[in-house]
Amino acid sequence: MADHVYKTIELTGSSTTGSDDAIRTAIARAAQTLRNIDWFQVVETRGHIVDGAIAHWQVTLKVGFRMDDPG
Amino acid sequence: MADHVYKTIELTGSSTTGSDDAIRTAIARAAQTLRNIDWFQVVETRGHIVDGAIAHWQVTLKVGFRMDDPG
Amino acid sequence: MADHVYKTIELTGSSTTGSDDAIRTAIARAAQTLRNIDWFQVVETRGHIVDGAIAHWQVTLKVGFRMDDPG
Amino acid sequence: MADHVYKTIELTGSSTTGSDDAIRTAIARAAQTLRNIDWFQVVETRGHIVDGAIAHWQVTLKVGFRMDDPG
Amino acid sequence: MADHVYKTIELTGSSTTGSDDAIRTAIARAAQTLRNIDWFQVVETRGHIVDGAIAHWQVTLKVGFRMDDPG
Amino acid sequence: MADHVYKTIELTGSSTTGSDDAIRTAIARAAQTLRNIDWFQVVETRGHIVDGAIAHWQVTLKVGFRMDDPG
Amino acid sequence: MADHVYKTIELTGSSTTGSDDAIRTAIARAAQTLRNIDWFQVVETRGHIVDGAIAHWQVTLKVGFRMDDPG
Amino acid sequence: MADHVYKTIELTGSSTTGSDDAIRTAIARAAQTLRNIDWFQVVETRGHIVDGAIAHWQVTLKVGFRMDDPG
Amino acid sequence: MADHVYKTIELTGSSTTGSDDAIRTAIARAAQTLRNIDWFQVVETRGHIVDGAIAHWQVTLKVGFRMDDPG
Amino acid sequence: MADHVYKTIELTGSSTTGSDDAIRTAIARAAQTLRNIDWFQVVETRGHIVDGAIAHWQVTLKVGFRMDDPG
Amino acid sequence: MADHVYKTIELTGSSTTGSDDAIRTAIARAAQTLRNIDWFQVVETRGHIVDGAIAHWQVTLKVGFRMDDPG
Amino acid sequence: MADHVYKTIELTGSSTTGSDDAIRTAIARAAQTLRNIDWFQVVETRGHIVDGAIAHWQVTLKVGFRMDDPG
Repeated sequence: MADHVYKTIELTGSSTTGSDDAIRTAIARAAQTLRNIDWFQVVETRGHIVDGAIAHWQVTLKVGFRMDDPG
Repeated sequence: MADHVYKTIELTGSSTTGSDDAIRTAIARAAQTLRNIDWFQVVETRGHIVDGAIAHWQVTLKVGFRMDDPG
Repeated sequence: MADHVYKTIELTGSSTTGSDDAIRTAIARAAQTLRNIDWFQVVETRGHIVDGAIAHWQVTLKVGFRMDDPG
Repeated sequence: MADHVYKTIELTGSSTTGSDDAIRTAIARAAQTLRNIDWFQVVETRGHIVDGAIAHWQVTLKVGFRMDDPG
Repeated sequence: MADHVYKTIELTGSSTTGSDDAIRTAIARAAQTLRNIDWFQVVETRGHIVDGAIAHWQVTLKVGFRMDDPG
Repeated sequence: MADHVYKTIELTGSSTTGSDDAIRTAIARAAQTLRNIDWFQVVETRGHIVDGAIAHWQVTLKVGFRMDDPG
Repeated sequence: MADHVYKTIELTGSSTTGSDDAIRTAIARAAQTLRNIDWFQVVETRGHIVDGAIAHWQVTLKVGFRMDDPG
Repeated sequence: MADHVYKTIELTGSSTTGSDDAIRTAIARAAQTLRNIDWFQVVETRGHIVDGAIAHWQVTLKVGFRMDDPG
Repeated sequence: MADHVYKTIELTGSSTTGSDDAIRTAIARAAQTLRNIDWFQVVETRGHIVDGAIAHWQVTLKVGFRMDDPG
Repeated sequence: MADHVYKTIELTGSSTTGSDDAIRTAIARAAQTLRNIDWFQVVETRGHIVDGAIAHWQVTLKVGFRMDDPG
Repeated sequence: MADHVYKTIELTGSSTTGSDDAIRTAIARAAQTLRNIDWFQVVETRGHIVDGAIAHWQVTLKVGFRMDDPG
Repeated sequence: MADHVYKTIELTGSSTTGSDDAIRTAIARAAQTLRNIDWFQVVETRGHIVDGAIAHWQVTLKVGFRMDDPG
């Protein structure tokens, strides 16, 4: 970790399939604009129910990435 | 959401398969007697272990539903 | 309090006006079907935002009431 | 636990004697109307003081019971 | 919610008037630079006291908004 | 803040009007006997319900003030 | 509760007998110098062990009392 | 405490009698194999209910003991 | 549960596949050296991200087992 | 601990040097007016930043002291 | 504080020296790109251990700064 | 992390010097009997006060280490 500084952001991913897939959705979106993503941590698992069945799984994550030098 | 009022109950579903399936079990049971179920939120994920393997996954949820007018 | 037993339920009231009014909405709905409501406690204050302004205030409460004897 | 679903409710029992007795009061009341009560968990222990002494012990519990099939 | 990903940021709004108004201040500022703000959740309510009266109400919020595709 | 030391006390104010007013009640009482009150933070918002309506709003606060030198 | 303001202090009582008795010890001491004590709430239950047995039960409480007017 | 290092373990004791007795059961078992046990702290109080009455009180504790030098 | 005493330990299992599989990894390792494992409870779900994808799921559990008599 | 009763107060100390020194500042101030201070516990570590550097470290503590008999 | 709005971000700084220095590392990095940083609050203190000694101290902070007007 | 399983234990180290040194004391003791210690996380910082000054800093840590195969 040396002298690096990390930043943590909070994202919510969704999926019609399940909780792990909602996490993958959020990570994939973050990776489109952030380099050096290093870890995630689950904050909350929720879901939206329609007609008595789970329509969307919604998982909120903290996602940590190494900050580049502003140089 | 207008002027609706929602009620939240706490259920624990179980499954021999995995954590997402335990959630689906609880939602399915709730849908047998409640209309207008709208969301869930995971409170706790536990399991029962027999002979060194997971015999049942047990997931406790808050389940929210819109209250009908008593009228 | 004598030998009474109290039950606590969790409700979410909404309002277009503000957080206190969302609480009043939930209490009013509870009072339509429950006698002997005694107290509330705020669990969470949220809101729904539409076009950059708060469309609904949503306050989740615990609401406690004295249980009648089943007799 | 098989495929059962459990529901948890929150009750507050009181006693002039002590904290364990307040728990027993709440369980006894729950057992008058619920079958299949399985466990409790203490949420909060409070008390009401009159003239410098404890007049009532008040213990709030989560009480879990197995839901029957609606059949 | 489909396949959208949401991001949550934490803001503190202030007001000389009251707690709800401090929330509105923070939402209004966020709406100047963020599209698709969807919800808020109160994290903390504080205030600054001057000469024995509340000079500023300070409410910290989580504010969630839908992320656009980076496309 | 220099070398000052602050003390925090916990107060509950009540009001028949609303939650912000219950906070103002507690601050006003504290200001009768404490100098140098600097901030408050809401710990809990509750209320007492009579005949299905809110009779008193009760808000518990931490209130911080700068300690004078004992000299 | 009217327009009263309540203050909460934190005390730890001890007992060689048990947890309820440690609570009674703390309340009795508080009642020697405070009028209008109204409620307590348990914060933490600990104990000191000597030679493999509990020598002292130590229960930390919040104790609330009505503030007199300074007048 | 000098330069000692303490280790904390988590135990659950049970009793048919009450919550304090469940604590004593756990401490007594710990004392059979650990020297230098110094304190406990209650983490959770639960119970198992059979036929509408408490069959077992179950109290989970953190138990701290001084580590001997490995020498 | 009779007069048994249970001990809880904290483990973190990892998996390249998903969160449930990381739990199974931790339980399987615990079962190699502990008899009488009875339950688990999820404490935290994290993961390690490499090149914008989840390389390892890491789930921290509390694992409870019945203590044998030292006899 | 015998039959003593302890009281806990909450203080915030500040320092331009570091977090441990902010704790020492608070303890030193408490010792000017309280006898029998026995322990502290850190509640929160914050700081004030001026021109991109830490101007004051601010550490909030619970400080416990043995109450004298009112005699 | 007037009508300003503050934003809070979460950073993790590291240091080979100690916990206060890890905080200074994170603040220094934030000050390279953010104006008007006002306060920090410690969220978590961790460290990485290599060969039985602390190789890096890692402290996670919330860092608050005043938002400029979008102009 | 591959398929490794990690175990977390809870230790309290003490020091007459300061909080970081109390952490080092606990890690050094753990390293005498455990291989593969990987990280620590601070759980609580306390201290013992004698004659109005800090006699011992006491820091409680979670310490994580990789479990060897029982092989």
